[in-house]
Amino acid sequence: MSTHYFDHVATTPLREEALEAMLPYLKEDFGNPLSQYEAGARAKAAIEEAREKVASLIGVRPSGIIFTASGAESNNFAIRGAALARQDKGTHIVVSKVEHHSILNPARFLEKSGFVVSYLPVDEHGLVDPEVLRKSITDETVLVSIIHASPEVGTIEPIKELAAVAKERGVLFHTDAVASAGNIMVDVGELGVDLMSLSAHQFGGPKGAAALYVKEGMRIVPLIYGGIQESGRRAGTENVPAIVGMGRAAELAASEVADNAKRLTKMRDRLIEGILKVPNVHLTGHRTKRLPGHASFVVEFIEGEAMLLMLAAKGIYVASGSACSSKALKASPVLLSMGVSASLAQGSVVFTMGGESTDEDVDYAIEEFPKVITRLREISPYAGGWGGQEESG
Amino acid sequence: MSTHYFDHVATTPLREEALEAMLPYLKEDFGNPLSQYEAGARAKAAIEEAREKVASLIGVRPSGIIFTASGAESNNFAIRGAALARQDKGTHIVVSKVEHHSILNPARFLEKSGFVVSYLPVDEHGLVDPEVLRKSITDETVLVSIIHASPEVGTIEPIKELAAVAKERGVLFHTDAVASAGNIMVDVGELGVDLMSLSAHQFGGPKGAAALYVKEGMRIVPLIYGGIQESGRRAGTENVPAIVGMGRAAELAASEVADNAKRLTKMRDRLIEGILKVPNVHLTGHRTKRLPGHASFVVEFIEGEAMLLMLAAKGIYVASGSACSSKALKASPVLLSMGVSASLAQGSVVFTMGGESTDEDVDYAIEEFPKVITRLREISPYAGGWGGQEESG
Repeated sequence: MSTHYFDHVATTPLREEALEAMLPYLKEDFGNPLSQYEAGARAKAAIEEAREKVASLIGVRPSGIIFTASGAESNNFAIRGAALARQDKGTHIVVSKVEHHSILNPARFLEKSGFVVSYLPVDEHGLVDPEVLRKSITDETVLVSIIHASPEVGTIEPIKELAAVAKERGVLFHTDAVASAGNIMVDVGELGVDLMSLSAHQFGGPKGAAALYVKEGMRIVPLIYGGIQESGRRAGTENVPAIVGMGRAAELAASEVADNAKRLTKMRDRLIEGILKVPNVHLTGHRTKRLPGHASFVVEFIEGEAMLLMLAAKGIYVASGSACSSKALKASPVLLSMGVSASLAQGSVVFTMGGESTDEDVDYAIEEFPKVITRLREISPYAGGWGGQEESG
Repeated sequence: MSTHYFDHVATTPLREEALEAMLPYLKEDFGNPLSQYEAGARAKAAIEEAREKVASLIGVRPSGIIFTASGAESNNFAIRGAALARQDKGTHIVVSKVEHHSILNPARFLEKSGFVVSYLPVDEHGLVDPEVLRKSITDETVLVSIIHASPEVGTIEPIKELAAVAKERGVLFHTDAVASAGNIMVDVGELGVDLMSLSAHQFGGPKGAAALYVKEGMRIVPLIYGGIQESGRRAGTENVPAIVGMGRAAELAASEVADNAKRLTKMRDRLIEGILKVPNVHLTGHRTKRLPGHASFVVEFIEGEAMLLMLAAKGIYVASGSACSSKALKASPVLLSMGVSASLAQGSVVFTMGGESTDEDVDYAIEEFPKVITRLREISPYAGGWGGQEESG
């Protein structure tokens, strides 16, 4: 059976070039970057080279990049670190209802520590309205965090406009660019953000390397205290091989992102068109303001996990909702916030493509998806009952 | 020039067997462990197998192991997470003065959040006295954290006795076993601790994988919030290759630790004997209650960095103090707490050996070290002046 990987939002394959770059640091160049002899210096130089490449991907200076171990760590660090550093100024922060769990859950932690958090609503496409943000900002607001692109529904938020609103009011702006950086053009200067999270394994780099961009001169309270790594802002022996792999993947992404985005947008549009031919299937997220390789749907009368497993049996690997909560089996808060009913949200399916995806993958998905849905509806106890019933409730 | 790596406390070479185990997960088996299709299931199974191996290394059940990205993260997680989970019971914690920065600095963060921290003194060998611990515990004490073995001076603390004192008083006990786990026999049950930090790259595993053991049923506040990974206790896409490498290294360490410790103890004792033949050189840490491969000294009239660089020029790679602070150029707080003068502490040199170290490495160090010291003392502006002067002050 041929396999067709449509789950790049969960993780991307590690690019061969990135692995090649990593291997010396998994073998002979194993030194600790803090060691003061040659082996340490080589590791240190490798990290600084990677820092330049990652910085270049998002259009910032290398000194603005702090390496972390995951997008989740970057997000926790960003919102807790920025909020705590400013708590003498105010204790109100603003996030959207379509943030990743690694923003929403630390926001709840901050609430327990005395912060007040506003959760901004979104429209039916998952978009945050800059005017709604404007009204939410008070004299107590110290931080706004809005996701750049949703891994679940693909929608790209108007970060430039949102950040401008925060800036007017002198409020810091963080964006979670984990799903976007490396996959679309992301320029910190153009977006006007103060903090940005990104993750290597979302653009062909390894798991275990991620970064937080922090604007020059900005104070941030560390999440991990200890040694003097990352200018004292993030302790722990650097994961040199993974950081080097992230650098190489960032370098490749920077040179390919424009062409890739163009190619993937065409493939995505063809996929959306094909999938929507199946009756009672609806696109989630915005039709055009979405990640190039991202096509997400809700399928009426079908339960997402069954769909996922039957597609997998055909060699089509997709997600049902965000990877980090796909086993939680609750209706997606992101879909609910967009006005999708709880029952319909159970039928969520997310196709995401990346650099190695091909037109043949799309052909295969378009051919097989309708058969799977037809078969599932034949055997589904929900078909024609459960879905409609709950929606009316 | 032959090279002789004596800096295993900074980082160990990645074992070939561990890299072999990692490679499939850096190539074809790149799936996200949370994905519900076969590739995800394979990644998940690989992590659970690694969890069993790491658990086995320290004699616990797999469910007690939470994977993290570094020893520093484990330490931050342990003391902040355990203290915050118990702040309704009390806000006093106890640590020693010879803890790693990744304990001391989060302890200072807790102080800013309203906790009171006691810093226990040590004797001239760096040992914490269980009676001193007993006197420090109050009705407000919720957590004690004492390092298992010092990376700087090699001293192994009497954790069993110290943990027993905490247990008597119903206080949780954490030990930072980053430098010890995999290098000496470490058994959680025998030591009687509730939490333990360990790190893969300290025993032949990769950078980027570490663990925190948490006693069954114990509540701990997460450091990184987000998805449901690690039973909701540590969010972030798992670094599958690194975790698999940690598991393999743990498995190897478990089977070899007794023999290795015996072999390295002999080599260490021979090294100590050889180095101490140089006049005005003193062992730091305890003579026998120390890590098998660990030999640390202070050298009078010599500045540590000069020594380190000249030894490196001879192909001997050592540390001067702990790697995480070696560029800070301050006198080591660990040495100061043991009663070493600030000037003498500047002449710190740490030799650490591991599995691939040989008798020839020891021969070479014993032969070359005296020459280096003689040469440095000839050219040193400090010789006979600076050292003595400050010491009298």
